[in-house]
Amino acid sequence: MTTSLPSFSPLGLHRVLDPPGVLPQAAWRLDASPVIAPGEVLVRVDRLNLDAASYRQLRETYAGDPDKIRAAVLDIIATRGKMQNPVTGSGGMLTGTVEQAGPDSPLGLAPGQRIATLVSLTLTPLVITDSLYRWDGQSEQVPCEGQAVLFARSIAAVLPDDLPVPLSLAVMDVCGAPALTRRVIRPGATALVIGAAGKSGSLSAVAARRAGAAKVIGVVPTEAEAALLHDSEGLVDEIVMADARDPVGLAARTQAAGGPADVTVVCVDVAGCEGGAILSTAQGGTVIFFSMATSFSAAALGAEGMAADVTMLIGNGYVPGHAELALDLLRTTPALRALFERRVGR
Amino acid sequence: MTTSLPSFSPLGLHRVLDPPGVLPQAAWRLDASPVIAPGEVLVRVDRLNLDAASYRQLRETYAGDPDKIRAAVLDIIATRGKMQNPVTGSGGMLTGTVEQAGPDSPLGLAPGQRIATLVSLTLTPLVITDSLYRWDGQSEQVPCEGQAVLFARSIAAVLPDDLPVPLSLAVMDVCGAPALTRRVIRPGATALVIGAAGKSGSLSAVAARRAGAAKVIGVVPTEAEAALLHDSEGLVDEIVMADARDPVGLAARTQAAGGPADVTVVCVDVAGCEGGAILSTAQGGTVIFFSMATSFSAAALGAEGMAADVTMLIGNGYVPGHAELALDLLRTTPALRALFERRVGR
Repeated sequence: MTTSLPSFSPLGLHRVLDPPGVLPQAAWRLDASPVIAPGEVLVRVDRLNLDAASYRQLRETYAGDPDKIRAAVLDIIATRGKMQNPVTGSGGMLTGTVEQAGPDSPLGLAPGQRIATLVSLTLTPLVITDSLYRWDGQSEQVPCEGQAVLFARSIAAVLPDDLPVPLSLAVMDVCGAPALTRRVIRPGATALVIGAAGKSGSLSAVAARRAGAAKVIGVVPTEAEAALLHDSEGLVDEIVMADARDPVGLAARTQAAGGPADVTVVCVDVAGCEGGAILSTAQGGTVIFFSMATSFSAAALGAEGMAADVTMLIGNGYVPGHAELALDLLRTTPALRALFERRVGR
Repeated sequence: MTTSLPSFSPLGLHRVLDPPGVLPQAAWRLDASPVIAPGEVLVRVDRLNLDAASYRQLRETYAGDPDKIRAAVLDIIATRGKMQNPVTGSGGMLTGTVEQAGPDSPLGLAPGQRIATLVSLTLTPLVITDSLYRWDGQSEQVPCEGQAVLFARSIAAVLPDDLPVPLSLAVMDVCGAPALTRRVIRPGATALVIGAAGKSGSLSAVAARRAGAAKVIGVVPTEAEAALLHDSEGLVDEIVMADARDPVGLAARTQAAGGPADVTVVCVDVAGCEGGAILSTAQGGTVIFFSMATSFSAAALGAEGMAADVTMLIGNGYVPGHAELALDLLRTTPALRALFERRVGR
C-alpha cells in the first residue's frame, strides 16, 4: 500500500485507463487502485453525495427499488473506477478522512483530517468496500466505506469543527459564486443578484456587500422567496419580484429599484434568463452566469442583438480560497446563516 | 411615409406584434411598416446575406428548387416581418442605403450612406418589394429591393469606399473578436489563438499583437492551414498544429511553443475545445470563447475539474467601435489582407 507509481500527472492522467490520453472526467474507466503516487492523497470515504440529476435517473429507472439502485451504483463504480452516471454524465461529491498524503501533494492535507471534495466524483478514482449495505437507496446521501484518490490539482476542503457537516457541505457546494462575485465587484457598485434567496444567490449578495457594493438588489420569483429574503435582514437593499425570463419586465423593475446594475450575478437554474440579465446591466457592466442552465449562444447573440457592451463571465466553480471565504461569510452574517439553516436544516 | 409612431423603444419593443412584450429577436412577428419612429432609421435594402445554416436548411428542404426557395423566403418575411428562419432560428445581415434617419436616432447615419447591419436579421423589421426576382436561389447572397428599419440600439456600419464590399462584409462579420481581444490583452502577454488561420482568428491574432502581446501562438488543425499561416508573415510568432479537442495534446504543444498563454482566444466553430483552451492557459489567465459551438457547462465544469483559476469570457459580438477597428487592422496589415483575400476573393 505504500509503493508509489513510477510517474504521475497533477491532473491524474496516469489514472486514465480507457480511452487513453483523455482527461479523467472524459474517461470511461479510471484506475482506482488505492496505491497512491507521490502527488496524490488517499481518502477513506464515509459518504457520497450523488448529483441530484444522477440520483433521479437511477430512482426512476429502477422504480425506486433500493436493491436495484444499490446494485446499479456499485456496478458503475466497479466498472468505471468512479461514480459517473453514464446516462446523466454527472457525479457528485464525497466526504471522508485523509488516510495518506503523498510527499509531493500540494493540497496541504494531513492524515486524520475530515474533508469534502470540491471536484466532481466524475473524475475521482473510487473503490467501494462495504457493498453500500448502510444505504437505503432512498436519497442521494450514500453512507459508505471505501477509498478515493485526490490528484495534485484536485480540490478538497477541510470540514470545519464549528459548523454542522450538512451546513458546511451546502455552503461548499456553491462557494465559487461568492468568490467570483467578490473578485468582480468594485466599491460603490450596484449589484443585482438573480435568485437572491437561494444558496449561491444569498452568498453572492453578501459577498457583493463585503466587496463594497453600494447597493444590492435581489431578484426572486415568488412571494414566498420574497418573504424569506425580507426576513433575512440586511442581505439585500431592495427586493424585486420578477420572472427573470422576461427581459423587459426584469429590466424595468430593476430600473425602478435603483438599477441598472454594474454587476449582475445569475444564480437561478432556469433556462432563458440571459436576455433579462444583459438588459438589466449597465453599458460597460459585467454579468456573471453561474446557472448551469445558461445558453452560451443565447448570451452571446442576446448581447449583440441589444448592442449591449457588457462583459459576460462563465462562472468558474474554482477560485482559490473559495471554500474558506464562503464559510467565513456564513459565520459572520447571522441572517445568511439563518437562511441556510432554513434551507438545509441545522 | 413621414408620420412618426407616437412612442418608441430603443430596443424596438414598439415593433413587436406577437407575442406582445418580448424582445424583437424572440418575437414571432414584427411590424415592418416603413413608417419610422423618431429614433429609427429607414434603410433601402439591396442585398440580404442569409445565415449559412438557414440557407442550407432551405436548400435541403426544397431540394435546391429556386422557385420554392424564393417562395419560402418571401413567405417567411411577409409572415414574420423579418427574415428569421423558423427552423434554424437564425437570420443573417443586410446591406443597403440609408433612406431616412429619424431626428432622435443615435446611430449617426445620414441619407445616402451605404451601410451593412451588424445586428441580426432575426430582429430587423423587413419588407421585400421585388419578389426576389433577381435571386437565383443558388447562394445565400440575395440581391433584392425592400426596406428595413434600424432601432436606436441597432448596430450598423458604413461600408468603406476603399475596400471591396465582400471583403468589408467578411471583416465586419467577425469584428467583435479582435475588439474584445484588444481589450483583454495586456502588454507583454502571451496570446494563444485557436483557429488562427480563420477570419476571426487571424484578426484576433493581429489585434493581440497591436495590444502589445509579446508572443502570439497560432493553433491550426491541418498542414494546409499551417501553410496558409506560414505564408502570412508576421501574423503569429509560433504555429502549432494540433487537434483543439485533445486537451492534453494541445496543452503540451502550446507549452513547447512558449506557453501556457495569458490569454487564449477560441475561434474555431468545433465542439469540445473548452478543455484544451483552459488547460493551455496559465493560472490567473483568461479564455475568450468566440466559437458558437462552445458549451457553457463544459467550460464551467472543465475549469472546476482541473482546478483552473482562469477567467472565462463569453465572446460578445458587440464592442463599441469594433467594425472600425477590424477594418483598420485589415488596411494596415498586408499579410492579414492577403489572407482575407485568399478566403473571400478580391
